[in-house]
Amino acid sequence: MMQGRLITLEGVDGAGKSTQLLRIEQELKAHRIPYLLTREPGGTSIGEAIRKVLLSPDFGEMAPETEALLYAASRAQHVREVIRPALQEGRIVLCDRYYDSSLVYQGIARHLGIDWIKYINERAMDGLMPDRTLVFLLSPAEGLRRAQQSHTPDRLEGEKMAFHQVVYEGYVHLAQQDGGNRIVPIDAAKPVEEVWQEVKKALAFLWE
Amino acid sequence: MMQGRLITLEGVDGAGKSTQLLRIEQELKAHRIPYLLTREPGGTSIGEAIRKVLLSPDFGEMAPETEALLYAASRAQHVREVIRPALQEGRIVLCDRYYDSSLVYQGIARHLGIDWIKYINERAMDGLMPDRTLVFLLSPAEGLRRAQQSHTPDRLEGEKMAFHQVVYEGYVHLAQQDGGNRIVPIDAAKPVEEVWQEVKKALAFLWE
Repeated sequence: MMQGRLITLEGVDGAGKSTQLLRIEQELKAHRIPYLLTREPGGTSIGEAIRKVLLSPDFGEMAPETEALLYAASRAQHVREVIRPALQEGRIVLCDRYYDSSLVYQGIARHLGIDWIKYINERAMDGLMPDRTLVFLLSPAEGLRRAQQSHTPDRLEGEKMAFHQVVYEGYVHLAQQDGGNRIVPIDAAKPVEEVWQEVKKALAFLWE
Repeated sequence: MMQGRLITLEGVDGAGKSTQLLRIEQELKAHRIPYLLTREPGGTSIGEAIRKVLLSPDFGEMAPETEALLYAASRAQHVREVIRPALQEGRIVLCDRYYDSSLVYQGIARHLGIDWIKYINERAMDGLMPDRTLVFLLSPAEGLRRAQQSHTPDRLEGEKMAFHQVVYEGYVHLAQQDGGNRIVPIDAAKPVEEVWQEVKKALAFLWE
């Protein structure tokens, strides 16, 4: 049986994660590799209920600490109910947002600090780090423009430009700190086909 | 302006917290002391949405870590949006369950450990400890019998007897560790009127 791998996709909103996820799925299918596509927050019934609370435009009063704890709660359920079992079956798990989103959005952009976010999440995810993380990097102005074209902005997308700038820089920081072992930065400003070539290279270890 | 105080009520289900809360309210009204009655999980719009997820009988698959993080998330919002502002207005805040419920239910009974629960909650509640905590102690068999008489058991109440026993012992442990400074154990097996005399004595500093 093939070894399961956890692949996470990260980045600013509108950076084209969904489009590339479809391409990755096609590639895995072509190679007959069993996989599971999931997302955070969500991925389980409990997680989807938490997602509704997190993304509701009615809850603009949400404290940063509340937000961070809800993301971690959704992740705790996701790892135990879905991700770990799928890996144990030998599947590739593709997860749209995971640990690094919390580090960047709550730890850096919401100023809660990386340490507290790491501490609550390491236990929440039972130590399960991704095998590879693709970070789609796109200038904030371009990212927001793309998101607004595709749908009505949710609460987080409605945050002001400065917030998106900090998120962008947060991802760049994580990618630099990582040194290229786990996190692979992807230049999402390029045309879709060129982005796909970068993604394909970063995930080649799955099918070669 | 009078100084605000945070009073929390804790204990096993069916120990008569609600009845005694009514008495405390009457006493505060009689002394014209401004107060706020609230509860956890809940106490805010976001907290009530989290409460629904926590107490839904549909979510029996909830991981202990998810449960602990959801309680902490509800608390983070509660402290910042409701409790702290009420204390700053000089009110007495009566809170039905708070920090100690997490220590006992998730830390001890769910085996997550007191340390992790303390760590996530101290930040969640921004260090806001209760001024006094009444712990209503009642044998588990009697507590469960009372709860089932009054309403259909929710998910947590449906837990098996052994769990309730551990919760009971957990509260006794916390009361012993505290040494009587913050936590006051109340013998909830006594008749209502006698329990009230104990409660009244423990809270006399509010109105004397």
